[in-house]
Formats: sequence, C-alpha cells, structure tokens
Amino acid sequence: MSLYDWILTGKEFVDKNDLSYPFEERGLQFGDGVYEVIRIYEGEYYLIDEHVERLYRSAAAIKIDVPFQKQELYAHLHELLNKNSVRNDATMYLQLTRGSAPRDHAFPLNTEANLYAYVKDFARDTDSLEEGASAITMEDIRWEWCYIKSLNLLPNVLAKQNAKELGAKEAILHKDGMVTEGSSSNIYLVREGKVYTHPATKRILGGCVRMKIEEFCKEADIPFIEEAFRMEDFEGADEVFMTSSTSEVQPLTKVDEVTIGKGRPGPVTRKLQAAYEKDAGITGTAAIFSKE
Amino acid sequence: MSLYDWILTGKEFVDKNDLSYPFEERGLQFGDGVYEVIRIYEGEYYLIDEHVERLYRSAAAIKIDVPFQKQELYAHLHELLNKNSVRNDATMYLQLTRGSAPRDHAFPLNTEANLYAYVKDFARDTDSLEEGASAITMEDIRWEWCYIKSLNLLPNVLAKQNAKELGAKEAILHKDGMVTEGSSSNIYLVREGKVYTHPATKRILGGCVRMKIEEFCKEADIPFIEEAFRMEDFEGADEVFMTSSTSEVQPLTKVDEVTIGKGRPGPVTRKLQAAYEKDAGITGTAAIFSKE
Repeated sequence: MSLYDWILTGKEFVDKNDLSYPFEERGLQFGDGVYEVIRIYEGEYYLIDEHVERLYRSAAAIKIDVPFQKQELYAHLHELLNKNSVRNDATMYLQLTRGSAPRDHAFPLNTEANLYAYVKDFARDTDSLEEGASAITMEDIRWEWCYIKSLNLLPNVLAKQNAKELGAKEAILHKDGMVTEGSSSNIYLVREGKVYTHPATKRILGGCVRMKIEEFCKEADIPFIEEAFRMEDFEGADEVFMTSSTSEVQPLTKVDEVTIGKGRPGPVTRKLQAAYEKDAGITGTAAIFSKE
Repeated sequence: MSLYDWILTGKEFVDKNDLSYPFEERGLQFGDGVYEVIRIYEGEYYLIDEHVERLYRSAAAIKIDVPFQKQELYAHLHELLNKNSVRNDATMYLQLTRGSAPRDHAFPLNTEANLYAYVKDFARDTDSLEEGASAITMEDIRWEWCYIKSLNLLPNVLAKQNAKELGAKEAILHKDGMVTEGSSSNIYLVREGKVYTHPATKRILGGCVRMKIEEFCKEADIPFIEEAFRMEDFEGADEVFMTSSTSEVQPLTKVDEVTIGKGRPGPVTRKLQAAYEKDAGITGTAAIFSKE
C-alpha cells in the first residue's frame, strides 16, 4: 500500500514528508470529524458523487461546515489524482474534522474545519472475491448514530481485530440478535432468490456500494428487501455477502460455525459481483465475474 | 488557558512549537486511544494515582500496551511539571493511542503506542461552584462501553454543545429515562440526606472524583447509594450535583425547567465541596467552602 507523494490539506497540496497535524486537533482528541474512503480503478474514482454527497451529509449531521463548495472539492480531489499521476487501482482517504482549538467539548468559535486527503495503491483481493470468506458475529455495542461516517471507530476496530484473531474477514454485528451490519461493511442475506438487508436507519451506515446493490438488484429483477434479519436466519440462508468500497461484493461462505448454502459463492452474489465490475468499468483481464 | 512550553511525547520532551503528530495516527483515524485529564493545584497533581490507574485500565480494556512501567510514567509526569515550572492551578492532558500505521481497522503489528502529555493553566470556576449551574437532559446515544475513557467522544461533544446553546453547563444523559451520567461528569441526586448515583457499570465512566465522593460520604456518614434514578426523580430532589476533574463538585440548581430544591446549592453538596477542597489541599483565600 504505497502512499503517493502529494497530500491535499485544506486547499493546498503538501509533500507527504512535510505533513504535520496541528496541535489539539479535534479529530484526534474527540474523534470530532467525518471521513470517506473512495475507490479508484485504473486512476479513476468510482462512486465519487455518492461519497462526496455522504461526506456533506455526515458533516451536516454533526454541524461541521465543509470549507468548500462541492464543485471546488471535486476539482481538488481530481487534482489530487493528477498531481500524483495515479494510474493504478488505489484508494483515496478523505477526512474532515472540526479543526484545531483549545480542548473543550463544546464547538470552538471561529475555527475552520481541517480537511485532508491522500491516495494509496490498493489491489483488488481477487482470491477472496472468487472463493468467499468467513465472518464471525458479535454484539453491536456502537453508538446509536451509525448513519454518520464519523471518526469514532473504536468499537469497529475492536470487532475487526476480534474477527482477524479468529481467522475471519469480517465481524457481523447484531443488536439483541438482529443483524445490523459489519464492522466496516453492509451485510446481506439471500433466501429464495431475494436479497435481505437491514434498512438504512440511524443504526447503520448507508453504504455507497449498498446503494448500487439496490440498483443492480432492480436491474436484474432480484427483490431487494430492506428488512432486518436475525442471527438464526444464517442457518437457512442460501447466500450471504458483504459490501464496502474496499471489499466490493464479497461472498461470505461461513458465519461462525455455520456453512452458508453449499459453502461456495452463490448465483445471486455472482450476478451482483458481475454488475459491480461492469459498473466500476473493470474490464479485460482485470474482470473476473463479468466475462460472459 | 495558556499552554506550557514543554510537551511530553513518548519518553522525550519537545518544545510545543516543534510538536507534530505522525501520519496515519490511529488516534485521529479511529479514535483508537485513551486519555486522562489530571487537575493540578498550585503546581501539584491531584488524584494522580487514580488517574494513572484508570489510564492503565482503559488501555488494557482496548488492548493497548502502555510503553511505560507505572513508576516510569510517574517520573515523566512529574518531570513535565518541573520542566515547565508549573506553580499555578492547571490541568494536564495525557493521551495514549495505539500508534501510527497504514490505515486498517485491525491492530497494526509491531507498532508502539503514542503517548503525549501537556499542561495548561486552568482556573477554578469559583462563581459557578458558589452559585450553582443549570443542566439540560438528553438521550444517551453513546456506545455501550463508556467505562473506557476513550477518544471516541463525538456524542459527548454534541451533547455539551447542545447544553451550551441552551445556556446550561452540562447535558445530563439518560437511557430510556434512566440517568447515566453527564456528557463529561458524573451526576448525583440527593434526597432525604442520601446521595444517589448510577452504579459504576460499563455504561458510565467511573470518575476519579466520583471515587472520592464515595469516600467523603462515608467519612461524613452520608449514605452513598449506587442506584440509578430516573428523570422524573429530579422533581422531588433536594439537591443535584455533578463531579469531574475540571468541574470539581458542581451544584446543579436547575435541570431542564425543574428548579432543584430551593434553587440554591444545598447542605450535602456544600459538605462535599468542603471535603473536596480539604482533600485537594486548597487552603487560605483560595478555599471557599472549607473555611470553618
């Protein structure tokens, strides 16, 4: 994951070696900020509109004024790719905090938000996308406003670490047995050709890829049902998959000790993976699921 | 709130003008860290043992290895005061994160925790301590592990800001009507000479001053009852107060539209304020409540 040289901070580009965070950054001391991770395929942003819209929504929800007009932000983000001559598959991390001010819980006065963004190479995990992966389940102990993509990610960190220690790719979270989402993904269950997922309430982050999944399902006449399902439902599931900007459409073939369906990625998941590749413009040898 | 020159980072002291945070700090990107605010009276730490113990407990709860033996940390913290020639009332902010590493939710390997600490002048809010203050109430939307003093403070920030906008000093949080604690304090209700407060479960932060309140109550034969009370109980309360390292023992004379008791700080609160001053070694003209 090599880091590109130029980093956008505020409206300027600085060399990565010259970057330093200001003292008493509210992002650091309170997690008082929001962020986005945007996928880049062959030097082009994927779903940039959805991510930028969500950044503004998240910022508005916690009353941070974005110090940019949207068009200006787009221009800076594109310049970030140009300046770094990004041609590969990569991710862009974009962060916006309430700024730096003497430490006090309440909002500081006359403090401008801090924005910064950087790009790193990031390869598709094609093995895992082809073969499927396993997940564990855990109680969802997060706060009640998970619809905001905030920097308060400690429970997500602890859940992901737990998954990793148990040899799984993701931790699926549940509130009293009701599945909400993954530690950094949305979770879907397929039964009798229908796709079920938790409704986009305040309890989950409305994923950008999740929005596309709804679209792909409509186009393919697959019922997309926003209805929470329970932990017990994994037993009778035909397929389970997760989505996120970094994991794309990732089949889950095992949840805790339960083997999902036949233990291999199922046909609905494959169809959605192909739709994703097509939508993201992944073609040629890079494409694995949309070859036909 | 003037900042003293020397800042402890790791095991070194750097001038505040030379401080810079490393890139991809997990404290910033995930709130993956813990902290303490320690009160200093006339150049001496108050409750430093309690705070240091809690820092180690918080770090252990999220599996961060503190890169210091306790005795070594004490030595560094005392050196921080010496080096800065602190003689006034002040606060020391101490922060420990999981360190800096390429962004990934799971714990990084072979990464050392980042610690830093700084001191700022901080005066007692004697007017508010004498006269009392008001509080508002809000739904507690925080995560379920509030016993860890973590950097995930966004809900606390939003609650405090809401209080400020409504002209109140604190936001009292409740889960379905059951009072947990304040946005940055513990909350107590006095009825018929008894002190009630939420038990120190995972739902609240066991405050260092809260521990002292329990002690002060025992010494003064005031029953200290760890029993959650409800929002409706404010109506019949004789006294309400809050405690924290920065607010000390702060009387609350109004909660939302409810005037508490006679609208003035009550005798139990005054007794505990006096006990606090005595314990903290606040004497002479600086003492307001322990004069007798």
